[in-house]
Amino acid sequence: MLKVITLEEFIKLIENIKELQELQEEIIDIDRIYNRVLSKDIISPCDLPGFNRSSVDGYAVKANDTYLCSDSMPSVLKLLGEVKIGEIPPFVISEGEAVYIPTGGMLPSGADAVVMIEDSEDAFNEVLINKPVAKGENLVMSDEDVVKNEVLLKKGTTIKPHHIGVLAGIGVTEVCVKEKIKIGIVSTGDELVSPYSSCPVPKVRDINGFYLKSAVEEDGCEGRYYGIVSDNKEKLNEVVKVALNENNIVLISGGSSAGNKDFTIDIMERHGKVLFHGLAIKPGKPTLMSECNGKYIIGLPGHPLSCAVVYKFIVKKILDKMYGRITDDINTEGTMGVNYHKARGREEYLPVKIEEGVIYPLYAKSSAISVLSKADGFIKLPRDCEGIEKGEKIIVMR
Amino acid sequence: MLKVITLEEFIKLIENIKELQELQEEIIDIDRIYNRVLSKDIISPCDLPGFNRSSVDGYAVKANDTYLCSDSMPSVLKLLGEVKIGEIPPFVISEGEAVYIPTGGMLPSGADAVVMIEDSEDAFNEVLINKPVAKGENLVMSDEDVVKNEVLLKKGTTIKPHHIGVLAGIGVTEVCVKEKIKIGIVSTGDELVSPYSSCPVPKVRDINGFYLKSAVEEDGCEGRYYGIVSDNKEKLNEVVKVALNENNIVLISGGSSAGNKDFTIDIMERHGKVLFHGLAIKPGKPTLMSECNGKYIIGLPGHPLSCAVVYKFIVKKILDKMYGRITDDINTEGTMGVNYHKARGREEYLPVKIEEGVIYPLYAKSSAISVLSKADGFIKLPRDCEGIEKGEKIIVMR
Repeated sequence: MLKVITLEEFIKLIENIKELQELQEEIIDIDRIYNRVLSKDIISPCDLPGFNRSSVDGYAVKANDTYLCSDSMPSVLKLLGEVKIGEIPPFVISEGEAVYIPTGGMLPSGADAVVMIEDSEDAFNEVLINKPVAKGENLVMSDEDVVKNEVLLKKGTTIKPHHIGVLAGIGVTEVCVKEKIKIGIVSTGDELVSPYSSCPVPKVRDINGFYLKSAVEEDGCEGRYYGIVSDNKEKLNEVVKVALNENNIVLISGGSSAGNKDFTIDIMERHGKVLFHGLAIKPGKPTLMSECNGKYIIGLPGHPLSCAVVYKFIVKKILDKMYGRITDDINTEGTMGVNYHKARGREEYLPVKIEEGVIYPLYAKSSAISVLSKADGFIKLPRDCEGIEKGEKIIVMR
Repeated sequence: MLKVITLEEFIKLIENIKELQELQEEIIDIDRIYNRVLSKDIISPCDLPGFNRSSVDGYAVKANDTYLCSDSMPSVLKLLGEVKIGEIPPFVISEGEAVYIPTGGMLPSGADAVVMIEDSEDAFNEVLINKPVAKGENLVMSDEDVVKNEVLLKKGTTIKPHHIGVLAGIGVTEVCVKEKIKIGIVSTGDELVSPYSSCPVPKVRDINGFYLKSAVEEDGCEGRYYGIVSDNKEKLNEVVKVALNENNIVLISGGSSAGNKDFTIDIMERHGKVLFHGLAIKPGKPTLMSECNGKYIIGLPGHPLSCAVVYKFIVKKILDKMYGRITDDINTEGTMGVNYHKARGREEYLPVKIEEGVIYPLYAKSSAISVLSKADGFIKLPRDCEGIEKGEKIIVMR
């Protein structure tokens, strides 16, 4: 009945997605670049700091002048003046001379090291140096932090605040990013009503449309909600046609079970080629996907928990692939708090709560929404796994 | 010279912050609530699903009618019709009767269980049941997911997509959240120029202003950048006065070392009471904070890496406290890839790179910005720690 594929087959299938659809790029000011994905490497146009500077408050000297000095036998140097921060020092240091320099100040020419203020004594027009310094000591050299033409951020990086700092630091204020993936979101089902209207028994409110719009936006895409469509094949087809035209991806939640109101697959067949119909994961089996001229329609289960699992572990992988995103495989480890038994055959995503590093499964039917308010993350139980024992270490995906 | 406090003293100090300043609350539509902090518990106004419903496709029956049935001795029930999803079924089931019901359909009165379609055979106006069901089997009861008046989301929760789904599900579309903390951001230093202008030697571009604005916005606050102020006490005082008037917190980066251009502390004293001047952490020692009628001025180090550490591990704690935010203490564990030695005395935050679960320190002077482009997170080395050995397990904070 269903053409069901495993997660491994799914991963293989999406390997080609990047080639199928190259997103355009756009140029964005760093002020608005948060959470966008770089479409080109960022190459530094300059050395940083760009000049030799002091890393301490102290005295710029010739290191040779401090040779063998000590508390009891200080070097006595003539004090020429003071380096002002942000200004080119109007001094040339000769043998026997020193200049006061603050942290970050530019090293005057002639000087080759800085003595920390703690190792000196100010004496009117002279300064006494109590401790020798080596050449280069207490200095940051001109290209020590960043070297001109160095790749500082790689294509595929998702921009976070520290990246914005880096871009500001090298004066790159306009950046090429991938255009946002546009995602149309459609909720189907005769039972659905808007959260904004009353909900007479036995209607239920549309959860997935609101969840998915927020989730795709959190993941750096543009989400557009096309509302609730009743179980009517022609109506659904009309909305999908519009959404497919206006977006790169259309997510349809609901209507993807093997029940008798299953139109999604028919509509997918009208618009393109069905890639799979059913995924061997739990929850989330009634997931389907088709390709339509480089765009995608993905059918997600109607049950909110299943829908969230499929979004997090399936749809997100497709988005990452389309963005060419460098993903972050750093996860959280914890210790299983109870024994958990599982049937073989389907990969399972189990919602869990974490309390002080101990992991507790949240038992819930896939229709449950309350579990969404309680889960700290999910654990993945592979296909052939038959359970996890209390005390076992396991990775939690957030 | 500096009134330096330890991290423990700092934590104790901010214990009172919530009392000092209660943020106002505002009412926000769930469409715009992402990343906001709940100011009240969310209590469900209804049971969910709100009616007894089937969790499978099958036949609604009286469980007693399936007693002892089997493949060879099926129960034969009269088929009354079909439950339509989202509609009240116009049937009352009596002994010997059944109704087709889809997943999510409302249980007709009289029925008390659902037989899965796999365990039945359709035979024109009758259905043959091959397997007994117990009362309540394959049903989700009216209040099984959510019970009316249950606390679904706690005050202090930061709203993420799954929370938005939960709110949609219970029809709560307007929610009380804490008003955004307003944060004024000032960068000081004669050496600073805007990333948008040219940067003649020995000027440096303002990194911290751009980093901090993006970081506070990521953390759910409103960031306002007041630009670069030269090292002039009266000018700085004017800008701080305006920023303090317009915001809850003012962050000043730069100008907080013990150097001779240290005006920040003087200005803090003019506007309120200095709480500390110096933190025993590395990097980040030249951090200072004052309280001014329930508002705060925080001076951060000028060095970008130090500024980022102080923001992440100090300022963020203050924001969480002001928001009453439920924080997330789930961290990532990895294995140290090399030996790392540390001097006792100051708690140290070390930027690290993680490669396949192995942690490598990024050695950098605190003025370095390149490390910001490479770090995956930080490890914390306590005050009395003298280092970590290769192979030791350690937590990475992101």
